[in-house]
Amino acid sequence: MSTKEKYAIGVDLGGTNIKVGIVSEAGEIVEKASVPTLAEDGPEIVISQIKKGIGKVIPDKNFDIKGIGIGSPGVISIEKGIVENPPNLPGWGKVMLGDILEKEFNVKVVVENDANAAAIGELVFGAGKNFDSFIMITLGTGVGGGIILNKKIYRGDFGAAGEIGHITIDYKGNRCNCGNYGCIETYIGNNYLIKWVSEELANTSYDSKIMELVDNDLDRLTPKIISDAADLKDEYAHSVISKMGLYLGAALASVSNILDVSTYVIGGGVSGLGEPLIKAIENGIKDRVLKSLSSRVKVVPAMLRNDAGVKGASSLVFYNY
Amino acid sequence: MSTKEKYAIGVDLGGTNIKVGIVSEAGEIVEKASVPTLAEDGPEIVISQIKKGIGKVIPDKNFDIKGIGIGSPGVISIEKGIVENPPNLPGWGKVMLGDILEKEFNVKVVVENDANAAAIGELVFGAGKNFDSFIMITLGTGVGGGIILNKKIYRGDFGAAGEIGHITIDYKGNRCNCGNYGCIETYIGNNYLIKWVSEELANTSYDSKIMELVDNDLDRLTPKIISDAADLKDEYAHSVISKMGLYLGAALASVSNILDVSTYVIGGGVSGLGEPLIKAIENGIKDRVLKSLSSRVKVVPAMLRNDAGVKGASSLVFYNY
Repeated sequence: MSTKEKYAIGVDLGGTNIKVGIVSEAGEIVEKASVPTLAEDGPEIVISQIKKGIGKVIPDKNFDIKGIGIGSPGVISIEKGIVENPPNLPGWGKVMLGDILEKEFNVKVVVENDANAAAIGELVFGAGKNFDSFIMITLGTGVGGGIILNKKIYRGDFGAAGEIGHITIDYKGNRCNCGNYGCIETYIGNNYLIKWVSEELANTSYDSKIMELVDNDLDRLTPKIISDAADLKDEYAHSVISKMGLYLGAALASVSNILDVSTYVIGGGVSGLGEPLIKAIENGIKDRVLKSLSSRVKVVPAMLRNDAGVKGASSLVFYNY
Repeated sequence: MSTKEKYAIGVDLGGTNIKVGIVSEAGEIVEKASVPTLAEDGPEIVISQIKKGIGKVIPDKNFDIKGIGIGSPGVISIEKGIVENPPNLPGWGKVMLGDILEKEFNVKVVVENDANAAAIGELVFGAGKNFDSFIMITLGTGVGGGIILNKKIYRGDFGAAGEIGHITIDYKGNRCNCGNYGCIETYIGNNYLIKWVSEELANTSYDSKIMELVDNDLDRLTPKIISDAADLKDEYAHSVISKMGLYLGAALASVSNILDVSTYVIGGGVSGLGEPLIKAIENGIKDRVLKSLSSRVKVVPAMLRNDAGVKGASSLVFYNY
């Protein structure tokens, strides 16, 4: 093990699991661990789980650890490392996560919103390397966003910028958890997507390969299965993907018309729908965005995949963003 | 006349008229003139009209003129002073407006998009003075926008940012001139607004004071008349204003959720609807924006009014934005 290479610990604080890794400055994961978040037990227990996860990867003293980077849900004051009201971590209110971990491990700790951390990860190690400005979209249970402008994260007045999931595409649309109506998340967030496709397949006579792939049990439906059906040239699966492109196209055309940024990096579980979804999103944006922007629109898949959270979090330590 | 005060010439290049003024660094207009644009006659004639307008205000040699600022429609390359495809100026393509006027008048010339110039005018002289970041919205035939972040204009990758009018609020909505569907402009742009209200009043039995104010001739309807009816406590006029607030609220909640900017300055002709419209927009945004932002939302009227274009353009010369 070279003693000259620098390392950081990346922590991906999720609602279910906390993933921790030792990552080299070049983006290679050399150790990793996962512990349950135990979110329901409140902040003290979650924090002790974070310490436990970090403890699992640091016994090896050969690594020159420069700091700990944490991607956390919620609105983050990065200067102070304060996490505020993370949606899937009950009872948190305001937690001084940075201070707590700095005292415990005696290294620099950087806390950032998880979608922003993913965007920085793609910027430093992944699909965003060659772009000055791009928007990172994570498609999962929620639809997250991180805005990179001139190789820096754009955080807004209070660190809450980039909430791409809560762009309205129909002001008369369904109510969203956030209180707004017709947010893009209520069309293509994982649960909404599965509900929409299940209902259509249950109530209409589409002849779709999806039914075989779930053994006629729609409770087994996942985005991956829609993707598998699309690979088998299933017409209905393709129609679902192009509708997703239409919905996302409407939301992201608004984003491009506001920001004049035309590159999108698509990640997250639902992005497992792969190349057809990437193409559908690109077409959806091009169809709607202002003509002067249209030819510049470029949509690419994220590169970090499963390790996006840990790698992105570790990059916070090295990258001056 | 103090010889110490500095002055700039502001040029507001509109589709119908070119307004020109000599403006002090403190924002006082000391000379002004207006000439017809003659847009239909093409770029050469329009440029000679601009020169003519400027010629009308500069004979007085007592003013120390530091430069010429121009607010123009279209996408602008500010470094080079190039105007590209201004929507209401046929035949322009790309015009090197900055170079042409620098050669003619031998002073610094700054060309900027008209909505951005209005935003900078409000930042320097008007309602934006006390804010670091705000979004300027101009309500008129079109719905324009200028984004101020940390006291600088945000122009995007190619100077096309801030196209607030082309945010979709219903992806299945009416086709917009831009090619997209359900843009906010197709709900509250001047002509759409007048059409909507005229049709409702013609086809339904609303008992509205608007009918008296237009002498039963709906061809006379203007935003000002809707405003006058609202002042007379006309229920229908108020319902129109709150609907405008609902539509704009949906569009601007998306903007705030993306940018985490919560202050809006509202100007332009349609904003003559006054305080009730300002309140309706503020309520519309608060109803929809993410909870963490809601209490910070502030909507204020523009202060520069009729001289916004000329003052905003003049400020380009002095303000390092």
